Amino acid sequence: MPPSPIRKLVPFADAAKKRGTKVYHLNIGQPDIETPQVILDAVRHTDMKVLEYSPSAGFESYRKKLAEYYVRNGIDVTPANIIVTTGGSEAIMFAIMSCLDPGDEMIIPEPFYANYNGFSTSSGVKVVPIPSGIETGFALPPISDFEKAITPRTKAIMICNPNNPTGYLYSAEELNVLKDICLKYDLFLFSDEAYREFCYDGRKHISALSIPGLENNAILLDTISKRYSACGGRIGAFVARNREVIDAAMKFAQARLSPPTFAQILGEAAVDLPADYFDEVHAEYTSRRDLLIKRLNAMEGVTCPNPGGAFYAIAALPVDDSERFCQWLLESFSHEGATVMMAPAAGFYATPGKGRNEVRLAYVLNTEAINKAMDCLEAALHEYNKITAHRPVSEQSHA
Amino acid sequence: MPPSPIRKLVPFADAAKKRGTKVYHLNIGQPDIETPQVILDAVRHTDMKVLEYSPSAGFESYRKKLAEYYVRNGIDVTPANIIVTTGGSEAIMFAIMSCLDPGDEMIIPEPFYANYNGFSTSSGVKVVPIPSGIETGFALPPISDFEKAITPRTKAIMICNPNNPTGYLYSAEELNVLKDICLKYDLFLFSDEAYREFCYDGRKHISALSIPGLENNAILLDTISKRYSACGGRIGAFVARNREVIDAAMKFAQARLSPPTFAQILGEAAVDLPADYFDEVHAEYTSRRDLLIKRLNAMEGVTCPNPGGAFYAIAALPVDDSERFCQWLLESFSHEGATVMMAPAAGFYATPGKGRNEVRLAYVLNTEAINKAMDCLEAALHEYNKITAHRPVSEQSHA
Ligand SMILES: Cc1ncc(COP(=O)(O)O)c(C=O)c1O
Ligand SMILES: Cc1ncc(COP(=O)(O)O)c(C=O)c1O
Repeated sequence: MPPSPIRKLVPFADAAKKRGTKVYHLNIGQPDIETPQVILDAVRHTDMKVLEYSPSAGFESYRKKLAEYYVRNGIDVTPANIIVTTGGSEAIMFAIMSCLDPGDEMIIPEPFYANYNGFSTSSGVKVVPIPSGIETGFALPPISDFEKAITPRTKAIMICNPNNPTGYLYSAEELNVLKDICLKYDLFLFSDEAYREFCYDGRKHISALSIPGLENNAILLDTISKRYSACGGRIGAFVARNREVIDAAMKFAQARLSPPTFAQILGEAAVDLPADYFDEVHAEYTSRRDLLIKRLNAMEGVTCPNPGGAFYAIAALPVDDSERFCQWLLESFSHEGATVMMAPAAGFYATPGKGRNEVRLAYVLNTEAINKAMDCLEAALHEYNKITAHRPVSEQSHA
Repeated sequence: MPPSPIRKLVPFADAAKKRGTKVYHLNIGQPDIETPQVILDAVRHTDMKVLEYSPSAGFESYRKKLAEYYVRNGIDVTPANIIVTTGGSEAIMFAIMSCLDPGDEMIIPEPFYANYNGFSTSSGVKVVPIPSGIETGFALPPISDFEKAITPRTKAIMICNPNNPTGYLYSAEELNVLKDICLKYDLFLFSDEAYREFCYDGRKHISALSIPGLENNAILLDTISKRYSACGGRIGAFVARNREVIDAAMKFAQARLSPPTFAQILGEAAVDLPADYFDEVHAEYTSRRDLLIKRLNAMEGVTCPNPGGAFYAIAALPVDDSERFCQWLLESFSHEGATVMMAPAAGFYATPGKGRNEVRLAYVLNTEAINKAMDCLEAALHEYNKITAHRPVSEQSHA
């Protein structure tokens, strides 16, 4: 696996901080929203004699609660359809290991969450990207693109809805297109719904597992990391109505013994949060998104589609190489003592050369910080383009 | 992956309990020893606003503490040599994924911890068993057996020391044999030291990573699950002095983002337990072992080598098929209202047909319970052999 372009930037960010420059972190998906105290309290109040293994599928009581949560969200499942996992990360691994053999292929619209690559590689599975582009706001690629990519080794399509890194929220029509393809070619639909609760503009999230007719094909990959700002807990879920798939995944779940006990207790408490818990979170993210997108599109040469969900956006910048630009921001730039760290988008594309002028921004900072970060970015683009305009073309690109 | 023979017995154990029969669980490695309250308290007293991802390699503070722990145990490592993992299970996965490619081979003396199979399968790695037998008390197989098994695809040898399921503790001489083989054939030595603290009769544990000359080959796979009765925490460690190996494993660690936060806090507190913490635990396990082995060897037709470590023993029973016997114990037998659940040993052998008359017993119950369980077993063997003596030979075996 190649090192991710975000990680390559980390030493530069550290160096900037050492120099006394404040760094606005728009580069990672670690929410700043406080974890609800009542769910942290559930862990603080545990009273156990022996910290035992939980069942490999997770505590029965938690799986019951989770099933209630899914049913409330229009996803008709029972505890028997759920395996509690160590983060959504493990749910993704289980899906790939349970449904694909080494040499099999999985189609993913790009740009996509870069770690899908890692999990596929370690299982010998080939990722086949098909392009979605900033021009269409990262809508689902046309059906013909899927059909061109399908081979006898294709076993699954992976989507992330709402999407990391694009923020795109798939419509009912798009999900129906996916359904038709999956049924026609007998493919699994892996649906990573880590950001289910983060949908804006009054739009409703549609889970792949709630689509009639897709019961045997859809596998829901879930996590409480973002939903409750509980990333460090490491609790997710693998949810499938297909019995054979659950049985296959259980073998892997049993091999690793059990998911973490403390965070299951936290997760179980979270299901009982009041129904209006998300209202405030939602209002906060909405105002952050609105501000970020407005500021970005107001900058000369910058385009950023309005994302319908999650807390990410991809912007095209007037630079030839966003990786170099992001490094320069950390190495050589500051504006009122601060600079910005963003994720070069090339790391989210599997096709070499794609996304070279794009960055992903995570709006995990409050609006005041976002405003200041955008001031930095605006000033930086201005200065950067003055410098690079004088540089010989040969130096303007790594290609 | 085939279902494990232990799991196949679970419904029979449940049925026995429903009938009102007490079941002595000698079948699984879930210690009954209480988790030290002070380390549980460390979790109860956490005071965080956001439950964030920890660094992928684990908290720096915990890795520093862990390095101190290892140095105290004669293992000369720094925090940079350590990746905190989600249980020892994940450390095993990282070792296999980082050091072997699909199609590569890993030699393991059998019987061995059955989940090594699962992790190898999911990475496309072939497990090559070489026999260790009850006749030699499960000592390391002779060097000639290793050399016969080595092919150009052999990349690693896996040992578990002290061993699950045999309880065998490798001697300095045996570890030197392994060293010679690994250096001669350029192999990794994966050393699963989950039971490091559990060594008896005044013998000292020798870590593979403390063997001079093996610095680049030895990879230590560790866990706090058994050490501190903290199985549900899901914290282990991948420890290597070979920089390339650490770098390769870090890629997998980064893909799954981070190990669980709460249990890292627990693990960090555990390193500060008073030096005499293990004395009591040790004394308890020693008396359990002594009792169990004495009782077993006093039964007619039963042999059980005295294990030097861990909390397991393998016994040969005067039965033709221990799986059938274990099922019968749960289905059809009780003695003073109780019966015993043990693990049929065939599940720990990769070679079909091996271990058919053996069981693994975990001494995770107190001496009173062990005594009662042995009363049951003794009575059961007596009764079982009366029944089966009258059965036609064709029915005596599944083979
Ligand atoms: C799209 C997506 N899926 C899955 C994950 C995995 O998260 P976790 O393992 O914390 O549940 C993330 C984390 O950022 C993500 O963005
Ligand atoms: C030999 C051995 N290795 C590794 C493990 C994994 O334990 P954990 O993942 O809880 O650290 C076990 C658990 O029983 C074991 O017996």
